[in-house]
Amino acid sequence: MTAYRDLRVALLGCGSVGAQVARLLLEQREELAARTGAGLQLVGIAVRNIDAPRDVELPRELFTTDAEQLVLGADIVVELMGGIEPARGLILRALEGGADVVTANKALIAAHGPELADAAEQVGAQLSYEAAVAGAIPIIRPLRESLAGDHITRVLGIVNGSTNYILDRMDRFGDSAEDAMRVASELGYLEADPTLDVEGYDAAQKATILASIAFHTEVPVEAVYREGITGITSAQIEAARHAGSVIKLLAIAERLTAADGTEGVSARVYPALIDRDHPLAAVHGGKNAVFVESEAAGELMFYGAGAGGIETASAVLGDLVSAARRHVAGGPGIPGSAHAELTVLPIGEVSTAYQIMLTVRDQPGVLATIASLLAEHGVSAASVEQSVTHDEEGTATLVIGTHQAREAELAATVEALRGSDAVTAVTSVLRLEGNS
Amino acid sequence: MTAYRDLRVALLGCGSVGAQVARLLLEQREELAARTGAGLQLVGIAVRNIDAPRDVELPRELFTTDAEQLVLGADIVVELMGGIEPARGLILRALEGGADVVTANKALIAAHGPELADAAEQVGAQLSYEAAVAGAIPIIRPLRESLAGDHITRVLGIVNGSTNYILDRMDRFGDSAEDAMRVASELGYLEADPTLDVEGYDAAQKATILASIAFHTEVPVEAVYREGITGITSAQIEAARHAGSVIKLLAIAERLTAADGTEGVSARVYPALIDRDHPLAAVHGGKNAVFVESEAAGELMFYGAGAGGIETASAVLGDLVSAARRHVAGGPGIPGSAHAELTVLPIGEVSTAYQIMLTVRDQPGVLATIASLLAEHGVSAASVEQSVTHDEEGTATLVIGTHQAREAELAATVEALRGSDAVTAVTSVLRLEGNS
Repeated sequence: MTAYRDLRVALLGCGSVGAQVARLLLEQREELAARTGAGLQLVGIAVRNIDAPRDVELPRELFTTDAEQLVLGADIVVELMGGIEPARGLILRALEGGADVVTANKALIAAHGPELADAAEQVGAQLSYEAAVAGAIPIIRPLRESLAGDHITRVLGIVNGSTNYILDRMDRFGDSAEDAMRVASELGYLEADPTLDVEGYDAAQKATILASIAFHTEVPVEAVYREGITGITSAQIEAARHAGSVIKLLAIAERLTAADGTEGVSARVYPALIDRDHPLAAVHGGKNAVFVESEAAGELMFYGAGAGGIETASAVLGDLVSAARRHVAGGPGIPGSAHAELTVLPIGEVSTAYQIMLTVRDQPGVLATIASLLAEHGVSAASVEQSVTHDEEGTATLVIGTHQAREAELAATVEALRGSDAVTAVTSVLRLEGNS
Repeated sequence: MTAYRDLRVALLGCGSVGAQVARLLLEQREELAARTGAGLQLVGIAVRNIDAPRDVELPRELFTTDAEQLVLGADIVVELMGGIEPARGLILRALEGGADVVTANKALIAAHGPELADAAEQVGAQLSYEAAVAGAIPIIRPLRESLAGDHITRVLGIVNGSTNYILDRMDRFGDSAEDAMRVASELGYLEADPTLDVEGYDAAQKATILASIAFHTEVPVEAVYREGITGITSAQIEAARHAGSVIKLLAIAERLTAADGTEGVSARVYPALIDRDHPLAAVHGGKNAVFVESEAAGELMFYGAGAGGIETASAVLGDLVSAARRHVAGGPGIPGSAHAELTVLPIGEVSTAYQIMLTVRDQPGVLATIASLLAEHGVSAASVEQSVTHDEEGTATLVIGTHQAREAELAATVEALRGSDAVTAVTSVLRLEGNS
């Protein structure tokens, strides 16, 4: 075999992912050398506390608390500390020194991706972050490379395992929202503060990254419309099932034409109804999947584990091997590509169908009132069903499925329903996704 | 923007895929230039008959019948003629001249992949064939690059859309085998000679390619064990459903340890039962999907269109963009990687569970006879069910689910059942796949 060049790999952080990456680098030295044409030499692991307990036993002499020093001499820096600083500063320093950088830090990429991509491009280095979205699933590389000759039109992702686990339990086992949350928490699916997951902040960060890559456009995380799953009730799950659908928290990135003709991009996160025959409906438990629609390839889906130390380490290793091959071959990394610079459009420009649940006064003429109210706002009903009558209160529950319309019109319709004398309460408003 | 270098792209073949590739190259000139940093100049299209009708209107001056001449001056050659010769000779000539080659030719890659990969490696050129397996689905690149730091243990693929369409109709609409075949044929899912599809030859070519890439080992197509779907009956579909399973034609590549301890690889194609909760069970109609199991990433699935001119053209374009970027950046292509050189093991070394359907004499002691016959061969029954009694003939139908055992033992068991006086006929033997 040919003599290998040694590449110096610096690891920043040694949590559940970092420890597995270190283990794999050490255990698979020869295999990785055969695959890359370079020896991947782990030169150090920067941590805050050298004596903290680790998932994996690693040589003590590898550990250092001096991340800045470690970064200086590295050919490839693997950042798995998480958070914005000092990760951002260390990555910028590494790139300025010509090192390739691999990171799994979704918060950082969502907030500072363009800045870091620019820094990489200026020195011809490679910045890769496959593990930042949907853990082990190869999605960044297929979007950036395999579909590079195609035009992506829409991306629908189940990118948060905790919320998918909760919704899946409610759907498949009939759990109440509280029970499903409790089980998810007991099984370690939820953080001590579950807000990041259940309010959709985590999914929004991933929507930003997916939208940026799919549409070659900077999409700031602040521009992502976001609703979480905390309001989702068993009644909504049941109404979804009755309509042949299932509720999933989706991160959506879509090419859109605004009402005024502007070509733009929408990025949004919300719980939505999706048809039970749609491939995303079969994504159970804590699994993730990203469904991609494009002009030429049509419909694609990428499915797998969205989290987990060893699973995520697989994605990090893939990026690491790619960076090593680039070092051996020479040549610059793939550029960050924000060349399209489309307008990021607000939620009001999105077109979807709605499922609306109402409590109405159970009296003659109510249906006619509601039908004409919809028509006034340019929204047409695809189905109306009276599901439950509450005789003692003189009210009934209606489930209305609308045809596709612009969000602004649908929102105005819901507002008008809320103000109508015939309507006691609007108990649920959910969008339908996944149809063309 | 920077000045672009022009790359000369030669297209060999202009069928349904070639015509779409040509169209996209011409229509998306500027977009592709922005994405690659190079102008992709379509310099010619080699065809047998310049006046043949095409799916897409293309400038007549691009066409030539002189493929050899066209290849000579090209930076990138896109081979979409199909068949072994002259495709193989033209690709070798292109690679010898230092051109990168993109092909969708599964028959050629299955038969001569290693030879072509060697030729590419010798001159540092890139040979890519994403479109050769599962059409539009990015699977080759994820296996070769994203999972490059992982260890793949098994690949289960639904890689033939025609047979999936037929089996899906039988399962979901209750069609007989003949009806499903007829509909598939009417809708253009089947070739005039459907043998390549229904007898599993097409899937076997893809199994070869998947096994070679997943395990860095040359797996000749002749070494792929192969059974088609022509024997599959409605009764088998029904028995599968009853067992909570569905029958899919699977192309399987698996790492195995033989009985004698040899580390090896198995590649095989057959219709198998798969649990209805398995993600592959939700792959309907003519869609394809490849399910990958690896040590670190766990379970991944890649889903999408397995055929179609425009869908396949998307995968070709992705390879083309990758080749163009490499030309701009310099450096060699990713090597073909047969460095593991594992032994290709015969079907007898595979371990699976079986579902066996028997017609037996409906008399006392039959079950005991069959149970002891299984035990003699070291096979243990997981379930035995008497499904139908044919009173007039004095026979009954038994469905036996076995625990996992080596194929050789299971085959011997089936042989012994066939020879038993208690057994009138063995009507179905199917393997169960997808369990760990």
